[in-house]
This record gives sequence, structure tokens and C-alpha cells, in this order.
Amino acid sequence: MALLESTHRRKNPLTGRWVLVSPHRNNRPWLGATEAVNENVLPKHDDSCPLCPSNTRANGDSNPDYKYTHVFRNDFGALTPNASEQLQNLESDSDLFIADEASGECRVICFSPEHNKTLPELSQNALHEVVKTWKQNYTELAQQYECVQVFENKGEIMGCSQPHPHGQVWAHSHLSTEIEAEDNQQLAYYKKHGTAMLADYAQKEQADQTRVVFENKHWLVVVPFWAAWPFETMLVTKDNIQNFSQLNDAQTDSLAQALKVLTTKYDNVFNCSFPYSMGWHNAPANRSSDEQHWRLHAHFYPPLLRSATVKKHMVGYEMLGESQRDLSAETAASILKAASTTHYKDTAG
Amino acid sequence: MALLESTHRRKNPLTGRWVLVSPHRNNRPWLGATEAVNENVLPKHDDSCPLCPSNTRANGDSNPDYKYTHVFRNDFGALTPNASEQLQNLESDSDLFIADEASGECRVICFSPEHNKTLPELSQNALHEVVKTWKQNYTELAQQYECVQVFENKGEIMGCSQPHPHGQVWAHSHLSTEIEAEDNQQLAYYKKHGTAMLADYAQKEQADQTRVVFENKHWLVVVPFWAAWPFETMLVTKDNIQNFSQLNDAQTDSLAQALKVLTTKYDNVFNCSFPYSMGWHNAPANRSSDEQHWRLHAHFYPPLLRSATVKKHMVGYEMLGESQRDLSAETAASILKAASTTHYKDTAG
Ligand SMILES: O=P(O)(O)O[C@H]1O[C@H](CO)[C@@H](O)[C@H](O)[C@H]1O
Ligand SMILES: O=P(O)(O)O[C@H]1O[C@H](CO)[C@@H](O)[C@H](O)[C@H]1O
Repeated sequence: MALLESTHRRKNPLTGRWVLVSPHRNNRPWLGATEAVNENVLPKHDDSCPLCPSNTRANGDSNPDYKYTHVFRNDFGALTPNASEQLQNLESDSDLFIADEASGECRVICFSPEHNKTLPELSQNALHEVVKTWKQNYTELAQQYECVQVFENKGEIMGCSQPHPHGQVWAHSHLSTEIEAEDNQQLAYYKKHGTAMLADYAQKEQADQTRVVFENKHWLVVVPFWAAWPFETMLVTKDNIQNFSQLNDAQTDSLAQALKVLTTKYDNVFNCSFPYSMGWHNAPANRSSDEQHWRLHAHFYPPLLRSATVKKHMVGYEMLGESQRDLSAETAASILKAASTTHYKDTAG
Repeated sequence: MALLESTHRRKNPLTGRWVLVSPHRNNRPWLGATEAVNENVLPKHDDSCPLCPSNTRANGDSNPDYKYTHVFRNDFGALTPNASEQLQNLESDSDLFIADEASGECRVICFSPEHNKTLPELSQNALHEVVKTWKQNYTELAQQYECVQVFENKGEIMGCSQPHPHGQVWAHSHLSTEIEAEDNQQLAYYKKHGTAMLADYAQKEQADQTRVVFENKHWLVVVPFWAAWPFETMLVTKDNIQNFSQLNDAQTDSLAQALKVLTTKYDNVFNCSFPYSMGWHNAPANRSSDEQHWRLHAHFYPPLLRSATVKKHMVGYEMLGESQRDLSAETAASILKAASTTHYKDTAG
């Protein structure tokens, strides 16, 4: 099939941005590198970790002896509740020097009391609690803020120096650049087709199966046709759901399973704790419209390319031109599909 | 000034994207870390380097015994001259599965015969030759391709494993996502104001001086008001120039000087070979319009934040929401302004 073999571009309909695909440079499926990686052996509890149960944080607060998840406000967050009110007219030339105030709140979500666990190593039940915590924090913050960004940076390679399993929520009154782009694009599609972009997309991928990594009753995991990162995936609802607050118990459980399968497969590709940034895109909150153009979805952006230590660098051309990949989305999907759903740590020995 | 102290966003008028600025997290000017960095001592000539003069490359070609620059085609480039012609109708649903052919050419530009030199360590004369080589390759490739992306990845942290000083050119028939965005935004500004966005911008920054790092007769180096990376700069022409082919000798010389000053200052901020991705944005080539809305400019995107080893990670929130910075553009500019124009290696001892 010509599309898979020669250089081409694919367009991300959620953002309008393109990705350059050069499969001739690297399109051989492989079995995963087996090079040894030094994974630090961590204790179950680390007395010096600010996220472990019962420990005291820098600001003097003590963590509770929590059993599943624990959430606290990040006092050094990038966003703070009270922004300046004098900002609007600080710069005179509004077409060149455009600034706006920003106020919000940043929270840290501990995924587990155990310092040395990661998402794929949690039980289905514990993952259910993680999803419930996301839902609860989303629902709470969405009452005040239009844009509630739930995300996780995992791995040192992603700038995450704290190994205790945790994610973050940054909530703010304005729409972020990505959410605004996705909102505009989904709305334009809805106006044209009368259906939701991601609902149509999920259906087509489900029918085709080429890029589907996993699916269950309520969720689909797919390497998007327009994926930029080597093993990028999208985790999208199959239901008519726009945000976390709508999740019922069955959808929550189904999501916990999908999370476990996807993150386990990731770890098994290179037999390592697979680094990534992931996050949820909810429809903007508190608008009068019913947001039928949106579907709740998560993006996983993992940087690894060829082994536990060889990452794809989005640099030079990518920063100045557009994202570029060698491995095609279809090849990446077939590797992820083939990866086991039993975590490598459970099969070792 | 409220704008500098409290959380806010600034908009990049070239792309339409915003950056979140959180100066309360980190707005103290500092003098640069003095921690020791292991900079490998490299030989002037490395027999195993495919870029050194007279060496033989993997494909059997021998490099000439070049004195200034040397250019060759990258046989394993991301773009190749002959793309598939059958691509257009491969996918039926054109609003979800959008693909297009891409053909082009990738070249490597060696900046110097000396394996162990970097741009700031080249003489003004040698830098003049680098600019002339950029101009020559741009002019040649622009006859065939609409979009000619000249860039440099510098430093291992930027995925550049080849220390021999070099850059690249990726030329292709389509407009990249970044060039298309900048073209649209500059055109809209031109239609509204009757003047070029970057000409107006350069003039205002020149008058204000707050964010100006360096200027000479023909060029301005500024930390853009909307900079995303900690020490991001834009190098923009002061003249009515849209692309490299228009550069005269005086402008070339003036650019060689600006390059030397900027890259020297970068190295002096943390007393290390400052990593970055940089690249030139020329107006699209071969269009019937006169491109008066464009001004030739380069972006420098350096990742270092607090020392030779501590970089800013554009991860989680940045990938899913929008770019974020702590250090304000004004503070970064004042640090770069204060940095010496004598390279630290020349003052050591
Ligand atoms: O072509 P190089 O130097 O091997 O590769 C480097 O630059 C390219 C263009 O920015 C990137 O696509 C690669 O990820 C990077 O490692
Ligand atoms: O908040 P953390 O975990 O200290 O910081 C990490 O995530 C943030 C949000 O993506 C980024 O801005 C930082 O660059 C990154 O190091």
C-alpha cells in the first residue's frame, strides 16, 4: 500500500497540524530491545518522599495515611487563584503585544500509597479509585474553571524527578491553546456533518481495526492516523460523553481496565517503565452549549523510539516546521497490539 | 509592573498560540551556574567522523579537503525527491483521514572543517561563509521547492550525537505547519495594517530596548514578548527582506556578526556549549505575490533553564495545554544582555 511506504503527511483533525511521515527510514517491525536498563529498586515507603502516606511536606502539612489516592494543592503551582486585575491595558499595541491575565489552581494527585508502583502495577480496583479521583477533582474544579487539565508526566526523561506515582491537575479560567484548537476543530466538524468528530473517528477505526490497540465496552485505544510520537495513542470514549463528571460506574470500571492494559503493553514494548506524558481533554466547562461536538479522550505521548533509552527528539525541523516520524502509525499499532497484557515484571524469573 | 509579577499569558502573533507565564515561580536574575560540566575534549580532526575533510562517508563518497563549509545530500533524509503519486485517493473520508504526498530533499551543511569548533568559535570571516552557504543552498532549492527549512540542532540534549559543527536543510513542495501558520498570521496583519508584522515589531522593540539582546545595522536580536523557551530569541532583519536570496554583502556581514555575538552570549550564560535548535523562516518561494507581509527571521530555541544541565521540559501540561515558562522574557533578556561578548573559553586561564 503506497501510503505506508513512501513519504507523506497526515493531518491531525483535532488541531489542524500536520505530521511528516518518512516510513522509508524505519518501518521494520521489531521485537523490542532487550538491553538492560538500570531501574532503581525503590522502597515501598520512602521517608523523604513528600507524597508517601503520613510524611510531612515542605509547607508543614502531613499527608494522611491514605489507602488509594491523595490530593493536595500545589503551593508552588504555575497558576494561582488571584491574578492581577490591571493586566488588560498594560500593553498598548494589541496586535503585537497581546497579554491576558490567568488565574487558576494546581493540584497533585497521588495514585497510590506505594512509592514504588506505577499505573500498570496497580490492581483494577486501585485504578478504579484513580479514575474516581480524576472525576471528583474534575467535577469540583469545573464548577469554577472552564478548563481543567488532568495529566501525568511519567519518567525522568519527561522531567519527572519524583518517582512516587502521581499526576497533576491544572485548572484555569481561560481555554488553553490545545483545548481551544480542539474545540474549534470539533465544532466545525459538527456543524458540517451533524455528528461528533471523535465519535465518527472511533467508529471508523473500530471497523477497520488496523490502528486499534485495545477496546472494551466503553473505550477504544487507537494509534491515531495522525500520531506524531512513535507510540502515541488516544484513549477515547465510545459513549456520548463530553467530560469526566458524566462517567458512570460501568464506564469508570471499563476505563480502569483500558488503562491497565495500555500501560502494561507500553511497559512490555521495551521491558521498562515506559515514560510518557498523558492527559485528558474534557469539553470546556460551564458553557451554555451542550458540547455535543466533543468526546472525552486522553492523549498518551511517549517519547521512546527504539529501546528503553533511545527516544525520538522533536527538535530542529519539528520545532521550526512540523512533527516528523519514521515508524508509521500502523506499524506502531501492530507492535502495541502484539505486546502482552501481562506485565513483564510478573512474568520474569 | 503587574505584568511581570503575576501569572498571565502572552500570545505569539506569528502562530496564534499562547504561552503561560508564571514569574512568581522563578523570576530572580542570576549570574549563571558555575558547576563543572564535562565537555569532551575533541580533536581538530576525527578520522571516524563522516563530516571531517577528506574522510569517506558510509555511502563511499569522500569529503573534499574543504576550507570553510561543505554541503552534501543526506541519503537517508526524511524527504526524498520522488513521492508516491497515488496518494490522493487512498483514504476515502477526507475529513478524518487526511493524507498528502510529500517530496523534497535533505542536505547536511558542515559549518567548518574543524571537528571541535562551534559557531561562536568561528571567525567573523568563517561565519560570513556559513551565511553565504545558507544563502546559496536556499536560493538553489527555492527554485524547486516552496518551503526551504534551514536549521541547526546543537548539543546531545537536542538529539544531536554528531559534534562536528553542522546544520541541515530540509526542502519540500508543501508549506510546513509552522510556515503556513506564520504566513497566514503575517498576511492577516498586513491586510489590516498595511505594514509587515515583524517590521513593526522590530521597530517597537528597538524603541523600547527592554527585550533587545543585541542589534547592529541590519539585524535585531530580541527575546520575543511571547518567548516560550527560557532563553528563546528571534534574530530578525531590519530591512525589507523576505528570504535569503536577497541578502547583500553588507547584510551578510552584519548577520555574521550578530550570530557571533548571540551564540557567544549563549555559551557565556552557563559557561558551556549552549544547546539549541535554531532555524530560518523564509517567505514561501515561487509564489506570484511579492511577500511584503514577510520578514526573514530566525528562531533560537534553547532548552537550558538554570544551569548547563538543568533544562526546561516541555511535557505534560505544555503538550496537552500550552507552553509554560517561569522566567519572564524580560528577565531572560537582561541576563543575555549582561552576558559577555568574549567567549568564556577565550577568557579562561
Ligand atoms: O537528522 P538527525 O540529526 O540525525 O536527527 C535529528 O534532527 C532531526 C530533524 O530535526 C530530528 O527529526 C531527529 O529526531 C533528530 O535526532
Ligand atoms: O510540576 P513538575 O512535575 O515539577 O514539573 C514538570 O511538569 C510541568 C507540567 O507539565 C512542567 O511545566 C515542568 O517543566 C516539568 O518538569
